[in-house]
Amino acid sequence: MRVTFPVVGMVGGGQLARMTHEAGIPLGVRFKLLSDTPQDSAAQVIADVTVGDYRDLDTLRAFARGCDVVTFDHEHVPTEHLHALEADGIAVRPGPEALVHAQDKGVMRAKLDAIGVPCPRHRIVRDPDDVAAFAAEGSGFPVVLKTVRGGYDGKGVWVVSSPAEAADPFRAGVPVLAEEKVDFVRELAANVVRSPHGQAVAYPVVESIQVDGVCDTVIAPAPGLADELSAQAQQLALTIAKELGVVGHLAVELFETRDGRVLVNELAMRPHNSGHWTQDGAVTSQFANHLRAVLDLPLGDPRPRQPWTVMVNVLGGDFPDMYSAYLHCMARDPALKIHMYGKDVKPGRKVGHVTTYGDDLPEVRERARHAADYLRGTIQE
Amino acid sequence: MRVTFPVVGMVGGGQLARMTHEAGIPLGVRFKLLSDTPQDSAAQVIADVTVGDYRDLDTLRAFARGCDVVTFDHEHVPTEHLHALEADGIAVRPGPEALVHAQDKGVMRAKLDAIGVPCPRHRIVRDPDDVAAFAAEGSGFPVVLKTVRGGYDGKGVWVVSSPAEAADPFRAGVPVLAEEKVDFVRELAANVVRSPHGQAVAYPVVESIQVDGVCDTVIAPAPGLADELSAQAQQLALTIAKELGVVGHLAVELFETRDGRVLVNELAMRPHNSGHWTQDGAVTSQFANHLRAVLDLPLGDPRPRQPWTVMVNVLGGDFPDMYSAYLHCMARDPALKIHMYGKDVKPGRKVGHVTTYGDDLPEVRERARHAADYLRGTIQE
Repeated sequence: MRVTFPVVGMVGGGQLARMTHEAGIPLGVRFKLLSDTPQDSAAQVIADVTVGDYRDLDTLRAFARGCDVVTFDHEHVPTEHLHALEADGIAVRPGPEALVHAQDKGVMRAKLDAIGVPCPRHRIVRDPDDVAAFAAEGSGFPVVLKTVRGGYDGKGVWVVSSPAEAADPFRAGVPVLAEEKVDFVRELAANVVRSPHGQAVAYPVVESIQVDGVCDTVIAPAPGLADELSAQAQQLALTIAKELGVVGHLAVELFETRDGRVLVNELAMRPHNSGHWTQDGAVTSQFANHLRAVLDLPLGDPRPRQPWTVMVNVLGGDFPDMYSAYLHCMARDPALKIHMYGKDVKPGRKVGHVTTYGDDLPEVRERARHAADYLRGTIQE
Repeated sequence: MRVTFPVVGMVGGGQLARMTHEAGIPLGVRFKLLSDTPQDSAAQVIADVTVGDYRDLDTLRAFARGCDVVTFDHEHVPTEHLHALEADGIAVRPGPEALVHAQDKGVMRAKLDAIGVPCPRHRIVRDPDDVAAFAAEGSGFPVVLKTVRGGYDGKGVWVVSSPAEAADPFRAGVPVLAEEKVDFVRELAANVVRSPHGQAVAYPVVESIQVDGVCDTVIAPAPGLADELSAQAQQLALTIAKELGVVGHLAVELFETRDGRVLVNELAMRPHNSGHWTQDGAVTSQFANHLRAVLDLPLGDPRPRQPWTVMVNVLGGDFPDMYSAYLHCMARDPALKIHMYGKDVKPGRKVGHVTTYGDDLPEVRERARHAADYLRGTIQE
C-alpha cells in the first residue's frame, strides 16, 4: 500500500534549498523545486524540478498546485503573489503576513517598535537633507542607509558620513531607511524555529563574524556571552517569531552593544548562514527543523552535540578547482565537514562552507579557518 | 570558472543509493543513477536518473560512459559485465576481482580459507546425499545450505535437519554451499572502508540482532565485547579488504562463538545495514566514506560521537500510513532520527530505520525500539 507522504514545494534553487532537500531525504517527504535554471545549486540534486520565474504568478500558481505546502529559499517572492497563493488555498509557510517583515525593512522596524523589541534608532528618510536631519536628531554621522527591499549580503546598504554621500540610496526609487551606526562589540544571531501549532525551539545564540559585509565565521555558542544576554536574545527571537506569526526558521541578527544590550539588526525567515553549524553541530539541523515546522510536525532537539562548533564560509577566489584541494584538507583533518554548493567559482561568491567541532575552541577554529582558506586558494599549505 | 567535480555513477536505485546521494550532496560531486524504475527509492531524490536494466551490457556501458567512477547499491551486476566496463577503461569500484567475493559465496569461502580467515566448516555439496556426508564429517545435522549466488536477507538460505529436507536448495541449478550451523552467542559486524591508495579505516565493531533472518537492531559498539575480540574482528575485516582488493565499504558479518572466537558469516561490498548507525552516530558516515573511497579521497574519521548508538529497522506492517505516526514519535522523542526510504509499505519489507544515541544503553535502545514499533504499527502508544 502506498505511503502518503506530503509534497513540499521549495521556491528558489540556491544552496538553502539544496541543503533543505538533503535534510528532507531521511524524512521521506516528496520535494519539488521551482528553480530559475536547471543548473541552480539545488536543481543539480533534486529529482522534481520546475524551471521557471517565481515573479510570474501563473508559474508560481501552477507549481504550487502540486504541493501540500510551499516554502522558500529566499525572500524575493512578491508579497502579493503569496497572498494570491493563500487565496488559492495553498499552505504558504512562512505566510505573507509574516514574510513581509523579512522582505521590507521599513515594515520590520515598525513592527519591532510596536512589540517593544530593541532596535537601532531608525526612521524612513526622504532625501539627503532628511538624512542630515536624522543624524542631527541623534549622535550625528555616520548613518546607515538601507533600501527597504532587495538587499542582501551587504548589498543595498550604505554607511554615509555626510549628506553629500547620501545620494546613491535614493536613486533606486525604493524607500530608504536610516539607522544609527551602532557601536557594537560584535554581531550575534539567535536562531529559532516555530511551527503552526505554536511550538518553538531556540538554538544556542552564536557569534557571527562579517568580513566586507559578508558572513565569514560563525561560532556556536557565542564565546563568553553572558547567560542573561543569551537568554534575552533567545527570548527576543521567540517573541518576534510569535508576534510576527513566523512558521519555519527565523534568524535574528543582533548587535551586542558596548553597554551590554542586544539590538535587532536583520531578520531572515528561512534557514540562514548563521545556522549552518547545526548540520554537524546540533542534534537537529536548522534545515530539518525548518521542514518539520512547515509540515507542522513536532520540532527536533536544537541542542549542540559538543562544546564548540565553528563554521567558516568558503568564498570563491582565483583558484577554480576546489575539488583538488579536498586531498589536502581531508588528509590534514579527517573530521572536517565540507559542504559545497555545486556553484561556479566567482571571486567573493559563497560556494560552500566548512564545519568543525570539538572541545577546544582555538583548535576547532584554526581547523575551519585553514580548510576554508585552503579551499579558496589563499594559502597553499 | 567552472568547478570540475567528478561524476559518480551509482548502479541500483535502492535505499543505499538514496542515502549515498544524501551523503554526496555536501561533497559537491555529481551523482548519476541507473535505476530499474523511476519510482525506486533513490530515483525519487536524484536529479540525473537513467531508467534501465543493469543486466543489459549496452545499457550499463552507455550509463558508465558519462561517469568518472561507477559503484553499486547491490551485488547483482553480472561479474562479466564489470570486466567489460573495466576493459572499456571505466573505474569500477569495487572492481570485479573484489566484488565476486560478495557475489559468490563459494568463491568467497575458498578465498577466505586461502588467506587464513576463520570461517564455519563448509564445502560445496552436490545433492542431498552429499549433504548427509557433509553432516557426518562434522557434528551432524542441522546443516546450513546456501545457494552460492542470489541470496539476501535470509533468502537463498536453508537450515536443514535431514537429507530429506535438503532437496529445495538444489532446484535452482545453482551450486550449493553447505556450512556447519555455528553455535554462536551473537552476531557481530566489522565495517571497514578502503581506498585505491590502500588507506583504510575501521568502524567500531557492532552487534547485529536478526529476527527471522532479517537485521532488526544494531548496537554500536557491541556491548561487552572483549577488547581483544573487537581488535581481532577489525583486523580480520581490514585483512579481507586488503587481500581481496576491496575499494569502498566492506561489511564483514561475524558469528561470536560460545568458545570466544569470531567466524566470518557473510561479506558485503557496499554500505550495509549494520553501518546505518554511522549516519547519526559517527563523525563520518559509511555512505560518505564509501564515496570518499571510490573517489580515492582521504577517508573520514570513523569514530563514534557518543558512547552508544542504536539503529532499529522499520519493517512494513499492516499500517500503511507511517507519516501520520511521525507526530507521536517526534513529540515523544525530539532527538529521534528517522530515515525513511520512500518505499511502498509491504509486510516485512525494510522501508526505513530509526537511530538514537546517548550515554545510557537501555534508554537509547528503548527509544529506538519504541519508534520502530510505533512506525510499523505494532504498538499504539
